[in-house]
Amino acid sequence: MDSSPIRIGIAGYGNLGRGAQAAIAQQPDMQLMGVFTRRNPASLQLADPSVPVWSIDEAAARRDEIDVLILCGGSKDDLPVQGPSLAQWYTTIDSFDTHAKIPEYFSSVDTVARAHGNVSILAVGWDPGLFSINRLMGEAILPQGATYTFWGKGLSQGHSDAIRRVPGVAAGVQYTLPVQDAVNQVRAGQQPQLSTRQKHTRECFVVLQPGADGDQVRQAIVTMPNYFADYDTTVHFIDADTLHREHSGMPHGGFVIRSGQSGHGDGQVMEFSLNLASNPGFTSSVLVAYARAAWRLKIAGETGARTVLDIAPGLLSPKSAADLRRELL
Amino acid sequence: MDSSPIRIGIAGYGNLGRGAQAAIAQQPDMQLMGVFTRRNPASLQLADPSVPVWSIDEAAARRDEIDVLILCGGSKDDLPVQGPSLAQWYTTIDSFDTHAKIPEYFSSVDTVARAHGNVSILAVGWDPGLFSINRLMGEAILPQGATYTFWGKGLSQGHSDAIRRVPGVAAGVQYTLPVQDAVNQVRAGQQPQLSTRQKHTRECFVVLQPGADGDQVRQAIVTMPNYFADYDTTVHFIDADTLHREHSGMPHGGFVIRSGQSGHGDGQVMEFSLNLASNPGFTSSVLVAYARAAWRLKIAGETGARTVLDIAPGLLSPKSAADLRRELL
Repeated sequence: MDSSPIRIGIAGYGNLGRGAQAAIAQQPDMQLMGVFTRRNPASLQLADPSVPVWSIDEAAARRDEIDVLILCGGSKDDLPVQGPSLAQWYTTIDSFDTHAKIPEYFSSVDTVARAHGNVSILAVGWDPGLFSINRLMGEAILPQGATYTFWGKGLSQGHSDAIRRVPGVAAGVQYTLPVQDAVNQVRAGQQPQLSTRQKHTRECFVVLQPGADGDQVRQAIVTMPNYFADYDTTVHFIDADTLHREHSGMPHGGFVIRSGQSGHGDGQVMEFSLNLASNPGFTSSVLVAYARAAWRLKIAGETGARTVLDIAPGLLSPKSAADLRRELL
Repeated sequence: MDSSPIRIGIAGYGNLGRGAQAAIAQQPDMQLMGVFTRRNPASLQLADPSVPVWSIDEAAARRDEIDVLILCGGSKDDLPVQGPSLAQWYTTIDSFDTHAKIPEYFSSVDTVARAHGNVSILAVGWDPGLFSINRLMGEAILPQGATYTFWGKGLSQGHSDAIRRVPGVAAGVQYTLPVQDAVNQVRAGQQPQLSTRQKHTRECFVVLQPGADGDQVRQAIVTMPNYFADYDTTVHFIDADTLHREHSGMPHGGFVIRSGQSGHGDGQVMEFSLNLASNPGFTSSVLVAYARAAWRLKIAGETGARTVLDIAPGLLSPKSAADLRRELL
């Protein structure tokens, strides 16, 4: 391996961008060259002030200073534009996570990356991402069987946003929890048919606006279509101090379980699980490891879009293939 | 993808070979062409009698009838010879599992496979294999942390053989069990330092020879160096009927847990676990899935030895990359 560090850039400095900066500092073979922002660069306070902040308008000009650019924008509005645009100048990594739109996004990034000789690994993280890898391996190894994905206990950003839009709600958060009975059945190899309601419950912690009617708010939340109506939902009313003190973290996690029968009918259960104190902290750690893989593909002369399903595990490690065989096989 | 099935051969017809035959039957895109044996082919009773049985001496002659040959021999005596020898005629898969000798074995197979334009994926299974992948991903994503591997509850072939060599023992089996307290500490993110004794216990079920002294046998087992002296070992004496009735299965499993801190110090725990009713049944299912990957690499013009760490997950699935992105990401 080349001994000069991989030069990393970050585009976007929210939770994910801050997490990526900290994750890069943990890696032995990477150096953070700078952070691109759409805000006024002078307004951005980085954890490490020696790292330069640039306007995103300089992206084209700085292409030779960076080996891999980690895109830390959101999937709804940022990445559909930034992904294809930045792939013309950079080898990129992103965490695009709108599952239904991945094929379309893949295609738009792939076209640009191919045309400009770059590599883009997209939809990187844990779901989509590590969970996808485990779903794939489960069904490839045990073709006869069923795959289950459970999420939680974890803070759901989308559902938290939804309860904050309910009239009478001043603030609040929502946690998704797996139903332990269902998880136990699956782990025991029973392969149950589970409805949405049987797999997860939802728990809300809500601060009411002065004078708001708690019963009315609760009713509005638990009957909300798409978000809560199909689940057993519990609503707790708390004060703003408690919300700040006990619910400021962003924990998450979950399980992918493949329960199947091998050729002679023996029950076999594979499980991958995550228990995360910080969802953005972990996601950015995954992004940074895949930045190493992207750079190796680029160096090897490959071009175009990839997902985690296309990446050999060895490409994620700073160790040589020979060291990996000796130490980890 | 080409729609003609991948033509698979099996070399060796013990537990693993029989498991591979059953696993191939579960795959939509594979066909078992024949089984090579060192025994008299006429003496072999296959589950499916329509599959031909050939002498291993015909291996060179039948090279054009088979796309991928799955080597189902043992790691101690069979594979060190068969691996390099058969790689001159075939693209191969094997489950070589003597961890310390993998680099040497890799090198000997790699030389032959390269010289003859074949691909060999070796040391495939769950440990080495799927556990290795998870150890790698854990340390690549969370470089600050500790990796723990626990095995069991599972039947250990090597330790069962060891107790059967003790004077006075007519028959017996040995199970390895993880210490639940240790597993719980690791899952909770405590990153304990664990001695060999603190991680696993060993449980033996022994049938005594007529007139043998149970106390003497127990003492000989629990003090046996390398195998039992470093563990808390329990010895149960049972009769031959009970052994046959309750201990004929080959269950196994275990956990790989990575407990680490992402960049801002948040505790993150990744876990991969297996709960297997049949160890050889599952191992052969893994071998068969990797046979698909080997054939794709061969078709793509690659040559030489590989391990699971070199294989992109998508190569294991019969589905196209586009279908995988749509269905599993």
